[in-house]
Amino acid sequence: MPSQPRKKALVLFSGGLDSTTLLWIARSEDFEPVALIFSYGQRHRIEVEHARALAEEMGLEHRAVELDLRSVGGSALTSEELDVPRDRPESEMGSAGIPPTYVPARNTIFLSYALAWAEVLGVADIYIGVNALDYSGYPDCRPEYLEAFEKMANLASRFTVEEGARLSIHAPLIRKTKAEIIRWGVSLGVNYGKTWSCYDPRFGAGKGGKAVSCGRCDSCLLRRKGFREAGIPDPTVYEEVARSG
Amino acid sequence: MPSQPRKKALVLFSGGLDSTTLLWIARSEDFEPVALIFSYGQRHRIEVEHARALAEEMGLEHRAVELDLRSVGGSALTSEELDVPRDRPESEMGSAGIPPTYVPARNTIFLSYALAWAEVLGVADIYIGVNALDYSGYPDCRPEYLEAFEKMANLASRFTVEEGARLSIHAPLIRKTKAEIIRWGVSLGVNYGKTWSCYDPRFGAGKGGKAVSCGRCDSCLLRRKGFREAGIPDPTVYEEVARSG
Repeated sequence: MPSQPRKKALVLFSGGLDSTTLLWIARSEDFEPVALIFSYGQRHRIEVEHARALAEEMGLEHRAVELDLRSVGGSALTSEELDVPRDRPESEMGSAGIPPTYVPARNTIFLSYALAWAEVLGVADIYIGVNALDYSGYPDCRPEYLEAFEKMANLASRFTVEEGARLSIHAPLIRKTKAEIIRWGVSLGVNYGKTWSCYDPRFGAGKGGKAVSCGRCDSCLLRRKGFREAGIPDPTVYEEVARSG
Repeated sequence: MPSQPRKKALVLFSGGLDSTTLLWIARSEDFEPVALIFSYGQRHRIEVEHARALAEEMGLEHRAVELDLRSVGGSALTSEELDVPRDRPESEMGSAGIPPTYVPARNTIFLSYALAWAEVLGVADIYIGVNALDYSGYPDCRPEYLEAFEKMANLASRFTVEEGARLSIHAPLIRKTKAEIIRWGVSLGVNYGKTWSCYDPRFGAGKGGKAVSCGRCDSCLLRRKGFREAGIPDPTVYEEVARSG
């Protein structure tokens, strides 16, 4: 007997630890994920290639969205004039204000494109891997922001206003620590060796077939801390290890 | 004594009748307009050139935003596969559902970019030329949508959350008829001969130094009706007139 085709869900996907876990969570919640990959002028462009390769390997439908946030500027992730911070103490992350890697309105712009795709594909569920704990410094990662976006989105499109669809934004990672996310992902079968977190644009080139991460940007530091706290071996190759190996 | 520098406002600007009037309204409300021009893959790309030329002629600061809504599709304005409707009776516009020229999530995407620019430029006022009367068919032109966007935007950015700015979306045309907009613009000094409304991608090439509009797409029909009802001569050159002239 053929099984019922599964409902599709759009998943904002960067190929990183959080959004890869998200794909598996969407699957475990009985959705067929469609990966939306954003090429927005990030200096760590390698992220996009990792994301695409991973989506293909997982056999997922995926759509690439090309947009230019570089011309807007204002972030160390898109502007050559700002440095990606290195070796920040954990105590500074999240609590000491919004870091320079914050990209103005990025989640709002990404979710707006997701809203357009949702209507064109007839998909009412959108997954986003925002996290309010380990990155409490980003205003567009907070639950009250997502609620307001969802409300606006339900007033914005033909799909919701005329066709009666009820758009839902799912953010299952929002109150999880990195360690909890990693444990959840491992229980679902995620292979974190394939994911890419590093923000530093100078890293990412393959070395003996395996890409090397800086290990020192906020994103690498949070990733390392997450594996350490989860008590799970970190499969990532970081620079120091690569050097000493 | 030097006068106080005026506060800046971002104005979503297409070079059309509504958004050109909007620039003049923003000026009359004591703002210094910064024009945001969107090149989104519209088939009537001539719109962008008109907008740029007009902003330069007015001596305005302007920013071009390049984005790709063509890959999303779903609209006669971005997809070669859908025709821009011609000669629709007035009774069908607005009341008979959402027309094929509707672009999924366009205003949400445009306003999201404006939110990013607002933060980078430190500008708290955004003007958008949406109109709920002559285009009641577009869900993202309604007051309840704009209110929800404004609420979301105030939760979304560093500028509003950390720096205490209060972002305002101004939509002074929302309850005006085309005729009222034209009369308002004329009273402020707008030269409508320089504005471009036509949706048909086959039109717009200069003819004897003056661009020719189709006169038959929804946008041309509403423009003609507006001038007729306002009792103001329409300076636009339409195809039939050009032919017979």
